[in-house]
Amino acid sequence: MPQSRLKIIPLGGLSEIGKNMLVLEYEKDVVVIDAGIMFPEEDMLGVDLVLPDTTYLMENKDKVRGILITHGHEDHIGALPYVLRQLDVPVYAPRLAHGLISVKLKEHKILKNARLRVVEPGQSVKLGNFKVEFFRVCHSIPDAMGLVIRTPVGTVVHTGDFKLDHTPVDGKPTDLAKLARLGSEGVLLLLSDSTYVEIPGYTPTEQVVGDTFERVMAQAPGRVIVATFSSLVSRVQQIINAADEHGRRVCILGRSMIDTFQMALNLGYLKIPQGILADVDELRRLPPEKTVIVMTGSQGEPTSALVRMANRDHRQLRVIPGDTVVISATPIPGNETLVSRTINNLFRQGARVLYDRLERVHVHGHASQEELKMMINLIRPCFFVPVHGEYRHLALHARLGETLGIPREKIFVLEDGDVLELSQHHGKVTGRVSAGHIYVDGLGTSDVGGVVLRDRRLLSKDGVVVVVVAIDKRTGKAVSIPDVVSLGFVDMQESSELIERTRRMVKEAVDHSGAGRDGKGAIDVKVKNMLGKFFYEQTRRRPMIIPVTLEV
Amino acid sequence: MPQSRLKIIPLGGLSEIGKNMLVLEYEKDVVVIDAGIMFPEEDMLGVDLVLPDTTYLMENKDKVRGILITHGHEDHIGALPYVLRQLDVPVYAPRLAHGLISVKLKEHKILKNARLRVVEPGQSVKLGNFKVEFFRVCHSIPDAMGLVIRTPVGTVVHTGDFKLDHTPVDGKPTDLAKLARLGSEGVLLLLSDSTYVEIPGYTPTEQVVGDTFERVMAQAPGRVIVATFSSLVSRVQQIINAADEHGRRVCILGRSMIDTFQMALNLGYLKIPQGILADVDELRRLPPEKTVIVMTGSQGEPTSALVRMANRDHRQLRVIPGDTVVISATPIPGNETLVSRTINNLFRQGARVLYDRLERVHVHGHASQEELKMMINLIRPCFFVPVHGEYRHLALHARLGETLGIPREKIFVLEDGDVLELSQHHGKVTGRVSAGHIYVDGLGTSDVGGVVLRDRRLLSKDGVVVVVVAIDKRTGKAVSIPDVVSLGFVDMQESSELIERTRRMVKEAVDHSGAGRDGKGAIDVKVKNMLGKFFYEQTRRRPMIIPVTLEV
Repeated sequence: MPQSRLKIIPLGGLSEIGKNMLVLEYEKDVVVIDAGIMFPEEDMLGVDLVLPDTTYLMENKDKVRGILITHGHEDHIGALPYVLRQLDVPVYAPRLAHGLISVKLKEHKILKNARLRVVEPGQSVKLGNFKVEFFRVCHSIPDAMGLVIRTPVGTVVHTGDFKLDHTPVDGKPTDLAKLARLGSEGVLLLLSDSTYVEIPGYTPTEQVVGDTFERVMAQAPGRVIVATFSSLVSRVQQIINAADEHGRRVCILGRSMIDTFQMALNLGYLKIPQGILADVDELRRLPPEKTVIVMTGSQGEPTSALVRMANRDHRQLRVIPGDTVVISATPIPGNETLVSRTINNLFRQGARVLYDRLERVHVHGHASQEELKMMINLIRPCFFVPVHGEYRHLALHARLGETLGIPREKIFVLEDGDVLELSQHHGKVTGRVSAGHIYVDGLGTSDVGGVVLRDRRLLSKDGVVVVVVAIDKRTGKAVSIPDVVSLGFVDMQESSELIERTRRMVKEAVDHSGAGRDGKGAIDVKVKNMLGKFFYEQTRRRPMIIPVTLEV
Repeated sequence: MPQSRLKIIPLGGLSEIGKNMLVLEYEKDVVVIDAGIMFPEEDMLGVDLVLPDTTYLMENKDKVRGILITHGHEDHIGALPYVLRQLDVPVYAPRLAHGLISVKLKEHKILKNARLRVVEPGQSVKLGNFKVEFFRVCHSIPDAMGLVIRTPVGTVVHTGDFKLDHTPVDGKPTDLAKLARLGSEGVLLLLSDSTYVEIPGYTPTEQVVGDTFERVMAQAPGRVIVATFSSLVSRVQQIINAADEHGRRVCILGRSMIDTFQMALNLGYLKIPQGILADVDELRRLPPEKTVIVMTGSQGEPTSALVRMANRDHRQLRVIPGDTVVISATPIPGNETLVSRTINNLFRQGARVLYDRLERVHVHGHASQEELKMMINLIRPCFFVPVHGEYRHLALHARLGETLGIPREKIFVLEDGDVLELSQHHGKVTGRVSAGHIYVDGLGTSDVGGVVLRDRRLLSKDGVVVVVVAIDKRTGKAVSIPDVVSLGFVDMQESSELIERTRRMVKEAVDHSGAGRDGKGAIDVKVKNMLGKFFYEQTRRRPMIIPVTLEV
């Protein structure tokens, strides 16, 4: 019987929980599962990206034995350049993820010192008290893995992001036999992907998208332009297969698309018929109905090739009559408006646009309800912790687990930072560790904290007014009529009368208080209060007010 | 044969076109269809609501014979308080819309002078050269109407917002016989709702939501809390019917919900069993499984009762064990995150939450593809102009019209402001009129133009830095170390070193240029450029910079 308990601590995810980083700890050993970035939510103004809070890892630096990467998506690997700067530990990743990580670390100029290890499915790694084995799962990127982690308390199974596609494009389905075997051996804890627990039934196989591409390539009267994620390597394979079938040549466009394509090709994750690729110039010389272009922009990213085409703003490419544009992705929450605008503008340019509401141009990479039930029934764990999802997803997944016979007291819906301790028969949340988020804005990673964001939110709503007044040291009176600058509050020209009244009011207020008597600070407060009230009465707006008082 | 042409001018809608206002003009007569508000898009920072641009109407003030309202939703009536201030014309509206408009105009203190007229289905109104008849359609609010407008050039049919529910809650389906008769008489132009053209098949009847309510009320172990729009009067009726069926009493909560409820009840649009209503105090004394609460908050509005309950922030109401919350609406684009957070927090409080992804708790009020085809086939118009939808919806609706045999050259996809001129056999877009948007922020309606919004966008991204330097008039040197204030750029405390360097740099720059030589303006430009570069190098951020130079 082990003396100690196994700790499970989800550490990263914004609205999603345990998505980007999760910690397992047993005595003097810690392993970290994934190190991904989060994309800022709408009210995180000006924030470029968000990192998991690694305070707990830094406090336990000496214990960390390694980082285990389940697959190569940004929300699972994107934080590595930041985390590895603080934490010099080995990173274990499937081959394709390893390739993507290498590209990323090279960009950040820290590849040389990084200790990256490739793991194959079935391979085991010993990390202190943990013995980790990777097993194959299907997801929207090839080479996705789940983890079997044998600990002194029992076996932990982490599904990673998964679905149970029986006919995946790369021919490598989720290793169900392995899962069944694990289930018979006995599993202490299942950590399972909750992303699509709201969806009944089964997630369709990637093949249905292949069928759509086939039909589109056959029927499109001109060029076929497909926008998708560069990491959807299997999707790119399907596009190329369909193009080949219909005698079309394929142009891969855009830096990130080309980089990932090249890397996946080199590592053998893409099979390309001889001579099918074409560059933009070659493409131009071919009849449109013999061509396909693959690019990014499926999320309406303002600088992407697709968006620039939609806005007639691309150097080399215009929408031409007969173009069919396929948006082979669904909008990530928060991107809906950008995607909508892009589609509208493509229609305006005369393109025919196929997107998720009209055609089966995308299937997602996560298990739906029946697959999630299958996973739980195969593993039959003693404890169940739903991960990867917003709170409602975890709550629904927990209830799903209950309906399959897992006792309620053995199911834990955790929040990031919760510390769950497990013995062989008992589990309890025993505490919380720091699990805030680190905002990255430009080069700064820690300074965009509460104050800065709060100010940006206020500024974005009603702008700012700067009031400058020079006060005569001896008389305590304003030397001249104060200066007023408005940014984002009112139009200075249209509201010149308001601005004039403001200037006069401030002068009077200063003259009647006297800097000598009230002091500089008191005058600032007085101006702020007075103008706050005045502006609200006049405009029903509450700009930030910065009084600047100079004694001269 | 008429000498003049009929003009059709869509005037209001943001991404949607012709949604909130549309103009018909023939010689000296103009009628306006609807006068609705738009909800600001994400990048319209701080804007409360958006109005259609009425410049064209003001230029043709003497021609405007009246405003025709199709139904009582905000996006069709919300701009009336603003428009009627400028334009004293009669407003013709169905009875329920008339009630809602009266409430609204009273709030704005302009009800007394308004000329509001109730119209019943089948009733005709003569407005100059136009003879307007209203006909019944189904939508998500009772008493919705379409318009038949007889003009010297021919008959125009405007569907309003519609669907073809054969079993609506109020028992009053869309008047198909009328549409068929119109079709046989011959119709010049069909203007038809395009909102749900992407959806194949038929929109389900409201009855399916009633069935869901029945089941929920029967099975819920405790209170049933339903969040919906106050204008969904039929939805409220269904909730009350289901509650009655299962011996539950109903509490209507929140000002807008109660106001609309009361008005609809007074006008006879709601049928309420005796004694079913309860106020909050009565409710408290009943067993939870005998109660239902109806409230707003289905869009995650921060001040709504539902959101305050979700955040444990409501004075009177807490989530209690056994609560079932039904979100009986889908998020309006842009509100997805707010709704998501609310659902997550309700789950956190322990409620069971039913929402659109899990249950049939909402059906929308617009026609799907087969209904749109039915409309076109019944009317068989000479010309077809899809309205109410983003550009892609109009383009798809146009193509649908083509597949039904309307010649391509008789179908027009218009943008707001386009002037379409029709004779009996020919149509052409002949020009454009002003069709920008009027932003309302607080009391201001015209001053939140390009500059103010642009500044708010910049401020929201990287904040603002104010630099204040006093310059000695005689020496041209800085009197002291300049002041620097940062809002939303960096945390002044954490980045004190950066701020200090900034202050010293500005002092040096001023001392080396000399105000006497360069002048105040030149120094401002110099400081701006220098700091812009410096901040970008140091932080990769681009705050707005306001230099304030005082000569003393």
